[in-house]
Amino acid sequence: MSKITAQKKGLLERLKEGPVVGDGSMCMTLEKRGYCRAGPWTPEAVIAYPDAVKQLLREYLRAGADVLQTPCFYCSDGMLKKGTASGETVAYTTDAINEAACKIAHEVAAEGNALVCGGLSPVLSYLRERDSAKTRAEFDAQLDVFIKYKVDFVLAEFFAHVEELEICVDVMKKAKMPIACSMRIGPMGDSNGVSVEECAVRMAKTGADLIGINCLYDFDTCLKTLKRMRDALDKEGLKTPLMCQPLGWRCPEVEDKLIGYLDLPETPLALDPRTATRFEVHEFTRAAYNLGTRYIGGCCGMEPHHIRAIAQELAPERKRDPPVQDMCPPTGFMQFSGLSNIKEKASMDFWTNTKPGSGRPFNPASTQTEGGRFM
Amino acid sequence: MSKITAQKKGLLERLKEGPVVGDGSMCMTLEKRGYCRAGPWTPEAVIAYPDAVKQLLREYLRAGADVLQTPCFYCSDGMLKKGTASGETVAYTTDAINEAACKIAHEVAAEGNALVCGGLSPVLSYLRERDSAKTRAEFDAQLDVFIKYKVDFVLAEFFAHVEELEICVDVMKKAKMPIACSMRIGPMGDSNGVSVEECAVRMAKTGADLIGINCLYDFDTCLKTLKRMRDALDKEGLKTPLMCQPLGWRCPEVEDKLIGYLDLPETPLALDPRTATRFEVHEFTRAAYNLGTRYIGGCCGMEPHHIRAIAQELAPERKRDPPVQDMCPPTGFMQFSGLSNIKEKASMDFWTNTKPGSGRPFNPASTQTEGGRFM
Amino acid sequence: MSKITAQKKGLLERLKEGPVVGDGSMCMTLEKRGYCRAGPWTPEAVIAYPDAVKQLLREYLRAGADVLQTPCFYCSDGMLKKGTASGETVAYTTDAINEAACKIAHEVAAEGNALVCGGLSPVLSYLRERDSAKTRAEFDAQLDVFIKYKVDFVLAEFFAHVEELEICVDVMKKAKMPIACSMRIGPMGDSNGVSVEECAVRMAKTGADLIGINCLYDFDTCLKTLKRMRDALDKEGLKTPLMCQPLGWRCPEVEDKLIGYLDLPETPLALDPRTATRFEVHEFTRAAYNLGTRYIGGCCGMEPHHIRAIAQELAPERKRDPPVQDMCPPTGFMQFSGLSNIKEKASMDFWTNTKPGSGRPFNPASTQTEGGRFM
Amino acid sequence: MSKITAQKKGLLERLKEGPVVGDGSMCMTLEKRGYCRAGPWTPEAVIAYPDAVKQLLREYLRAGADVLQTPCFYCSDGMLKKGTASGETVAYTTDAINEAACKIAHEVAAEGNALVCGGLSPVLSYLRERDSAKTRAEFDAQLDVFIKYKVDFVLAEFFAHVEELEICVDVMKKAKMPIACSMRIGPMGDSNGVSVEECAVRMAKTGADLIGINCLYDFDTCLKTLKRMRDALDKEGLKTPLMCQPLGWRCPEVEDKLIGYLDLPETPLALDPRTATRFEVHEFTRAAYNLGTRYIGGCCGMEPHHIRAIAQELAPERKRDPPVQDMCPPTGFMQFSGLSNIKEKASMDFWTNTKPGSGRPFNPASTQTEGGRFM
Repeated sequence: MSKITAQKKGLLERLKEGPVVGDGSMCMTLEKRGYCRAGPWTPEAVIAYPDAVKQLLREYLRAGADVLQTPCFYCSDGMLKKGTASGETVAYTTDAINEAACKIAHEVAAEGNALVCGGLSPVLSYLRERDSAKTRAEFDAQLDVFIKYKVDFVLAEFFAHVEELEICVDVMKKAKMPIACSMRIGPMGDSNGVSVEECAVRMAKTGADLIGINCLYDFDTCLKTLKRMRDALDKEGLKTPLMCQPLGWRCPEVEDKLIGYLDLPETPLALDPRTATRFEVHEFTRAAYNLGTRYIGGCCGMEPHHIRAIAQELAPERKRDPPVQDMCPPTGFMQFSGLSNIKEKASMDFWTNTKPGSGRPFNPASTQTEGGRFM
Repeated sequence: MSKITAQKKGLLERLKEGPVVGDGSMCMTLEKRGYCRAGPWTPEAVIAYPDAVKQLLREYLRAGADVLQTPCFYCSDGMLKKGTASGETVAYTTDAINEAACKIAHEVAAEGNALVCGGLSPVLSYLRERDSAKTRAEFDAQLDVFIKYKVDFVLAEFFAHVEELEICVDVMKKAKMPIACSMRIGPMGDSNGVSVEECAVRMAKTGADLIGINCLYDFDTCLKTLKRMRDALDKEGLKTPLMCQPLGWRCPEVEDKLIGYLDLPETPLALDPRTATRFEVHEFTRAAYNLGTRYIGGCCGMEPHHIRAIAQELAPERKRDPPVQDMCPPTGFMQFSGLSNIKEKASMDFWTNTKPGSGRPFNPASTQTEGGRFM
Repeated sequence: MSKITAQKKGLLERLKEGPVVGDGSMCMTLEKRGYCRAGPWTPEAVIAYPDAVKQLLREYLRAGADVLQTPCFYCSDGMLKKGTASGETVAYTTDAINEAACKIAHEVAAEGNALVCGGLSPVLSYLRERDSAKTRAEFDAQLDVFIKYKVDFVLAEFFAHVEELEICVDVMKKAKMPIACSMRIGPMGDSNGVSVEECAVRMAKTGADLIGINCLYDFDTCLKTLKRMRDALDKEGLKTPLMCQPLGWRCPEVEDKLIGYLDLPETPLALDPRTATRFEVHEFTRAAYNLGTRYIGGCCGMEPHHIRAIAQELAPERKRDPPVQDMCPPTGFMQFSGLSNIKEKASMDFWTNTKPGSGRPFNPASTQTEGGRFM
Repeated sequence: MSKITAQKKGLLERLKEGPVVGDGSMCMTLEKRGYCRAGPWTPEAVIAYPDAVKQLLREYLRAGADVLQTPCFYCSDGMLKKGTASGETVAYTTDAINEAACKIAHEVAAEGNALVCGGLSPVLSYLRERDSAKTRAEFDAQLDVFIKYKVDFVLAEFFAHVEELEICVDVMKKAKMPIACSMRIGPMGDSNGVSVEECAVRMAKTGADLIGINCLYDFDTCLKTLKRMRDALDKEGLKTPLMCQPLGWRCPEVEDKLIGYLDLPETPLALDPRTATRFEVHEFTRAAYNLGTRYIGGCCGMEPHHIRAIAQELAPERKRDPPVQDMCPPTGFMQFSGLSNIKEKASMDFWTNTKPGSGRPFNPASTQTEGGRFM
């Protein structure tokens, strides 16, 4: 493994060459496949069902991802216990899970020259106590495993408060690796009331190499937020490139909710009708790229065929097709269908101009929700 | 493997004990994962990417399937060449694919005591020439590999003409195995103009052990067709149990199209918003069971979390939970969520009463289509 | 008045010259304007608020109607009492209402050379008792007022049972006037289980001059029914022209309900979002005409701008524009708008290709209903 | 007439006693009835078809309106010529139309103790030239007719620029009557970029007795704007009561368009499916009242049954029912229906909990529009 790592280009080199493609949904997709518990979302499958996890990572690699994140999201001692309150226990330690996640990510990444990214996420010490020292300690513990297992870069993601993110980035500096950071904010700004614009500027001023947003919101909401971030950065003369890993579900109606799609009645078990089509991903990818976004991947709900659409949309800029191209070019092999009405669909034009229906005349387009409370 | 096969109960025994759960979508799901070509749908992944295929079969097994179909649908010489016209070639022979499919199905089935089902499908000799002798010969060739690889039962499926199905069942009798058969018909009857009622009676009179419908139509359309089949059988005093493997997409508007969902503009690359929720599967399963359906699985679009919903809905009748129950009971582990608005969702009542939105206020519920022609 | 009546062409002459345009919604529209009670729908406004009724009739005349129906629907002694059970009383006698209705219709018709049509509707003696003699007597009473007030032709409409309609037509013959008849049936046939086809043939065989359908169903449902009626008549060599006066609300989902839109939750007070656009009326009118329909008007929900669309769509066949053309040609005077984006809308092409939205992302397209019971 | 005028309470007295109900849609409703030209919207019907106009005013009076606006919207010399460019001519002078409008409003108002309101609207001298003196002169001309015909109060409405409104209010002061003023703004503020908050404060500081918004936007958009106006006024300690006369069509998707619903493809001829239900009006009325709105009427699309819903919702606060109550209480007389499924609908609860469908499964909820340009 070390030999391959030595040869492969790092995150900063890749960003110089063209847009970087991230990977996609982990826990939510494993849940549909039968390997994750909806609610706690603890990633013990890396130990209990490693082949299922590897297969999913392999699909992202094949779809064109440059990066595989270690599949251990939210796996800090605090979060692991919280998610399993009331007597439920996860059979494995935090360390055991994190280590298994690193090994799996490295193993699959090595099959395709991908980077391994170690992800840090918000901690209870900040959320519940606003205790700076404890917060640093929790991030430190998350970081150590990534240093030990030599990930290629680190990412602070899903932050609701820019203040907590600043602490996290500061801690991450000791790893001497490229640093990315990403907040889960929409047009309303962060959960302390800091505006999108101020979040962008403060994130850039941490010195991170990539800054952006992930999760919680619809493509269109993310584009609005990215635009405002870009404008705020430009105003300050800050050049940090943007990243975005949006939801794979359509949910424009929660743009004004601080917890985004977590406020939808359908979350998490009945989101299927909201699943993005690959052509909606093409459209988002192009628009995000045009706004200066240089790292595009997916968060919850973004599955292999969605990640593939990012890599295929950006193929001209990246000067290469994803590995999956042999079997799954953007419009498939419709030209070889025996059905004449299918044959006619062998063009992006057809798909770009088709608005998919929901198949549910008795259901609404949007759902009304009650104001949810986030912890 | 043989030892396990010897011990496991056969199809007929299982049907006596309670409803049998089939597996789910193969080619369409592999396409989303990156292992099948949209259009030709040829199953060469069984040779080229066997681990990806095995993983999917394993997910169905884990979801509660009693049966794994050999993943080689439509893999006859004629169809294999047709799907790859214009110079495209599949790198493997029909035999090589079919054999690999049988081995994979046996390997995974053995991990969980499941039955292996060999599936026969319509042939070009009937479709294009109505040539009875050639038709028999094509079915014979399909059947031989299943006899050689000792599948547990055979299934004639996706038939558009009851006349062709009758020939197929007659050929299958030489295998001396239980026989199931399934047509891809809706309320308009078969493609020769034979009514649903007559199809049902003629299927039963072939002597097949299970008869039914699969693919092309929405849950609600299938329920209407099953009801008419059951009534027609009852009228004739025929007791053959019904089977149903419906689509996993909602498409009520193609009920009056002979080619069903193949007529939708969204087929096959933009069907995501039509994906059934697991709770829609629960509802369908219960209604189908109440109509006397005793074998329920899925066709295109029915993924692991859908098959799991069938097994979970029928758990009282089957007196057991599916293996996936450890991580994915019907409503997950919502009670352990840190979000109070998620916690409240830990009941089937909540999910049964929630109508999921499409997240697309600018799209219609249904799509208007031009009358497609099937070959 | 008599002088004008003497000069004007009768129904049969007009039918020979081209398609005849009927009038539109009466009670339901008066209710929105404040002059009719939702529920009983008794037409006492002809006495209490005659100017409001005359204004509505004038609008239909101006819209191009050749015919004004006497605004006294369902006004038989039986129905008048039934609708006002539980102590409610209508302050006027059946005779007084019917006479006022005739006078109003004659007065307004005389302003524009229109025909006056006297309408007979189902009676309680048939519905509750299937008593043939009493049924005849009730029709006789309805008819006498129309004979006395010299309407131009009579119409038996809104019949759920072809058997009752046959009795009614037989009674109407004594008036020595042209006879039209119309059932409120959809694809399921009449409420005694008589098929659409048999209804059509039996209606034609009564000797009526016009036969058809009215009320209860969507445009598209009516077109399906008209097509089946036309085919059945053709098969028997019957030449009777068809008439159709459909609902002005879209409700495709009640096609399989015997009481049609009366089964919708929104009936009668919240149907606004289902209101047809004038361009949907254009499309329906053309399709109905192409199926051989020669009398096209409107029932509940068809307001002046809808009736106008019928007359404008059929202007080439009728060789004249409706009176309203001075102010309201089909696409208005968009070319004189000060807004450039409105100016561009001065063509039928624009409007034909625009699918109007509901403006309600939180509402469904269709509504699920419980099987209603009709009396 | 003068005698009655002498006795009736004025606007300010009525506002002290409780919420005042305005009238509804004029030109757009007359167009549907056949008496107005879509595009120019010139109100010559007051001369050409006075009975049709009177009937509509009477319906608003009967629905509970306290006020009838003179039906001569936008009837200044400039606008009258502009709307009829390209050779089209209105056969009557501006003065003749305005005088006829005043007479009609007085005649009908006298039948029911209503106030007559003279409405001033934006002028071309401001819009095209920003010429203050000419602007004043145009307003002066509009005002003179209202002084001559002794309206009860004056209203400056449909203003896009608060600066123009300030000029108008200043001119209106010479009439020595109560003054109301209303802008056609949404959340984006006025067309010069002045925020909602600043508009509210500047309107109040003109000394007008009532300030508010009308036209262009959906109920929900208006509520958001009213809330921000109220908050801004409260902050400045300003007590001026609010007024609102919203659209009668649902169009949440144009909230971020300066020209509101004028940007919709469906405007003006295919808006029917967006028509509000009376129950949506009830809900809006209650919410607007709760925000401190004390004058609630309707603009384009608000028809008699909508205005009636305002008066009925506010009946407790107004301590009286509208005249229409004899025939049209809020839920009609459903209890007297012969249909049991209709009978069950005789309660506000039923209607409040019913979400009406659009009846159009092939249409979207919202429509996408291109940025329109206003003149």
